[in-house]
Amino acid sequence: MSSHDVIAVAERARAASHGLALATRAQKDAALHAMADSLLAHEAEILAANAEDVDRAEAGGTSPNIVDRLRLTPERLAGMADGLRDVAGLPDPVGEVVRGSTLANGLELRQVRVPFGVVGMIYEARPNVTADAAGICLKSGNAVLLRGSSSARSSNAAIVAALRSAVEDAGLEPDVVQLVPGDSHDSVKALMRARGHVDVLIPRGGAGLIRSVVEESTVPVIETGVGNCHVYVDRAADLDKALAIVLNAKTHRTSVCNAAESLLVHADVAEAFVPRVVAALQDAGVTIHGDAAFQAHDGVLAATDEDYATEYLSLDISAAVVPDLDAAIAHIRRFSSQHTEAIVTEDLTASRRFTAAVDSAAVLVNASTRFTDGGEFGFGAEIGISTQKLHARGPMGLPEMTSTKYVVTGDGHVR
Amino acid sequence: MSSHDVIAVAERARAASHGLALATRAQKDAALHAMADSLLAHEAEILAANAEDVDRAEAGGTSPNIVDRLRLTPERLAGMADGLRDVAGLPDPVGEVVRGSTLANGLELRQVRVPFGVVGMIYEARPNVTADAAGICLKSGNAVLLRGSSSARSSNAAIVAALRSAVEDAGLEPDVVQLVPGDSHDSVKALMRARGHVDVLIPRGGAGLIRSVVEESTVPVIETGVGNCHVYVDRAADLDKALAIVLNAKTHRTSVCNAAESLLVHADVAEAFVPRVVAALQDAGVTIHGDAAFQAHDGVLAATDEDYATEYLSLDISAAVVPDLDAAIAHIRRFSSQHTEAIVTEDLTASRRFTAAVDSAAVLVNASTRFTDGGEFGFGAEIGISTQKLHARGPMGLPEMTSTKYVVTGDGHVR
Repeated sequence: MSSHDVIAVAERARAASHGLALATRAQKDAALHAMADSLLAHEAEILAANAEDVDRAEAGGTSPNIVDRLRLTPERLAGMADGLRDVAGLPDPVGEVVRGSTLANGLELRQVRVPFGVVGMIYEARPNVTADAAGICLKSGNAVLLRGSSSARSSNAAIVAALRSAVEDAGLEPDVVQLVPGDSHDSVKALMRARGHVDVLIPRGGAGLIRSVVEESTVPVIETGVGNCHVYVDRAADLDKALAIVLNAKTHRTSVCNAAESLLVHADVAEAFVPRVVAALQDAGVTIHGDAAFQAHDGVLAATDEDYATEYLSLDISAAVVPDLDAAIAHIRRFSSQHTEAIVTEDLTASRRFTAAVDSAAVLVNASTRFTDGGEFGFGAEIGISTQKLHARGPMGLPEMTSTKYVVTGDGHVR
Repeated sequence: MSSHDVIAVAERARAASHGLALATRAQKDAALHAMADSLLAHEAEILAANAEDVDRAEAGGTSPNIVDRLRLTPERLAGMADGLRDVAGLPDPVGEVVRGSTLANGLELRQVRVPFGVVGMIYEARPNVTADAAGICLKSGNAVLLRGSSSARSSNAAIVAALRSAVEDAGLEPDVVQLVPGDSHDSVKALMRARGHVDVLIPRGGAGLIRSVVEESTVPVIETGVGNCHVYVDRAADLDKALAIVLNAKTHRTSVCNAAESLLVHADVAEAFVPRVVAALQDAGVTIHGDAAFQAHDGVLAATDEDYATEYLSLDISAAVVPDLDAAIAHIRRFSSQHTEAIVTEDLTASRRFTAAVDSAAVLVNASTRFTDGGEFGFGAEIGISTQKLHARGPMGLPEMTSTKYVVTGDGHVR
């Protein structure tokens, strides 16, 4: 697939996006329910296509962990359909008046949410992202170009075919949902260079994918997901709460970006807390990469700077004792990916200082890092978690999938 | 200046930004007043430095128009000082709670405005941008790296020296305002590649500068300013209002991005309106580049597609008669830079259709395109007008110079 082909696909999306931008909420919700119905109606084809992908992956020696992410089941397909119906139930962000006033000269000013236009999604293995992204983009009035991984190509093609026929049956242009074909990196590259044709690119996947999109794209990018998240246990922490939060943040689910990867403990509570947390983490199967204070305990490995900078996504955690709150803040500034950091403390001044000085998408007090999530925040749907500062930061729901424009109404006003 | 040097400057800005992010409004406003005082106290040095730049420009054969933009006078310097005091009078965007709720589980969620951190400004001739940008960035809690044009280097150095001494006297780190030295394009390039060190880049200047920053930068960019703005005179227009709006939009000030560059007239009113508007524009010294209907009038030149795509920034306008509203929308979709478009109509349905279908930063009804401006919109200060869809669109005031973070407070919450 050449760059010319990708631009042709994007231009069809652009043309289709004009109608979608003007569609009413009722039309879009009807399309979302039709998309859900269609996924279930095409269950046999989709699962058969998925079986091809799974067979190919297994034959190629892909790790069971990745194969599991790739695999669809009737339950997982039903979950994708439910997800689309959930999006139909959410408020329409398009048309929301963000700000409005009447100016001194009588001009009426309104800042209104509008779709971006054409959104490109570049993502890895999980085929459920195909339906999720299509649903969120459709509801927010955006045409979407989906570039999934080649390992899921048969699944994605079958899912997109089912979604497109439903979109068309619902009276919208099917080209608002399109797959970017081509297995090679060339089509990803063409998408990243399609400035003017694609309004925003959202990469979802591993750190390598995200870094390459961020560095090579001339299309504006929303960076998602890498989370080297810290839990800092303050001198004024309730140590029972701290223990529960550290265990939950590290072990509740290890492969996600809001899992804790690093533990910092104030020196004043190290003697009381470090033995307890080491024992509890080791009981839960966690390998600790610690500083000298942690290494005093059996089984703790020596941490390097690389450990402190690592998003393990596994049952590993780096750990250090810090002399005070400001040292914890300095450590976080040095090593954090600015996704989520938590402080455990009963001290209001310490909590104010930490939440003000730590510059991450989410800063939590006495709560597990696992709460940084669109679902937990009550957004109803999430396209990803932004770790950049422009446009959207933290979990992105439907409003984050829009831009705005100013509509200004006068009566012959001139300057 | 090597890339290493630019990163060193950015890292000093980063270190200084931590304190600035935590500064109170009172501290920042005191610094802004001190900066204003210091500009006036250093009037002699600044004007002497400016005279060097002006002499160099004149000796190099720079056009009088550009030399005038470069020139500072006691009045212009007083205007810069007043601008800083105006910014001091505006509300502090940092700390504003954008959204907040208590979740079902009792977690308190707040989305709070925070500074970006380090902002890079790349801009052309006018030395007043140096003080304006420093003031807006300081008030919004951002350290700023200023890369003005080499033609203003002496002026910018003198202005920044005056501002930095005031910032320091006011008890803030002077490194929150820094010049990126180096006259060559290398320092611009290094700034564009300083991802991770600079949080956002804002280019202000001609289309060439902006295009090169947008295409080459790995640092997130806010694109500003190119305006190929349209006025569409609908069949239901009040033609007196239409005439006043077209004249104002084209001739009130020609060198600005919100000036009209293209006129579209509905066929049903062409006979009544085209002769009037041609005469009035020509009386005002405007050269019209028109289609066949306009060319029927003396002195109208033939328009090419390139004319319709051009931001003249001069007493020129492209013009065409369109068969209907949808043809006007299609023309705008093809040629507009999505800055500002205006419709003149008394027909509510036409105005609803135009404002919904035209995807520009500002869409005006019965008002001159010249109103797309931070000052006119009541923002009090403006760092530029964004023509991109990510983050900020249209005139950018202080809130647009911030990001947000989520602060989440619990009592030992785990999932």
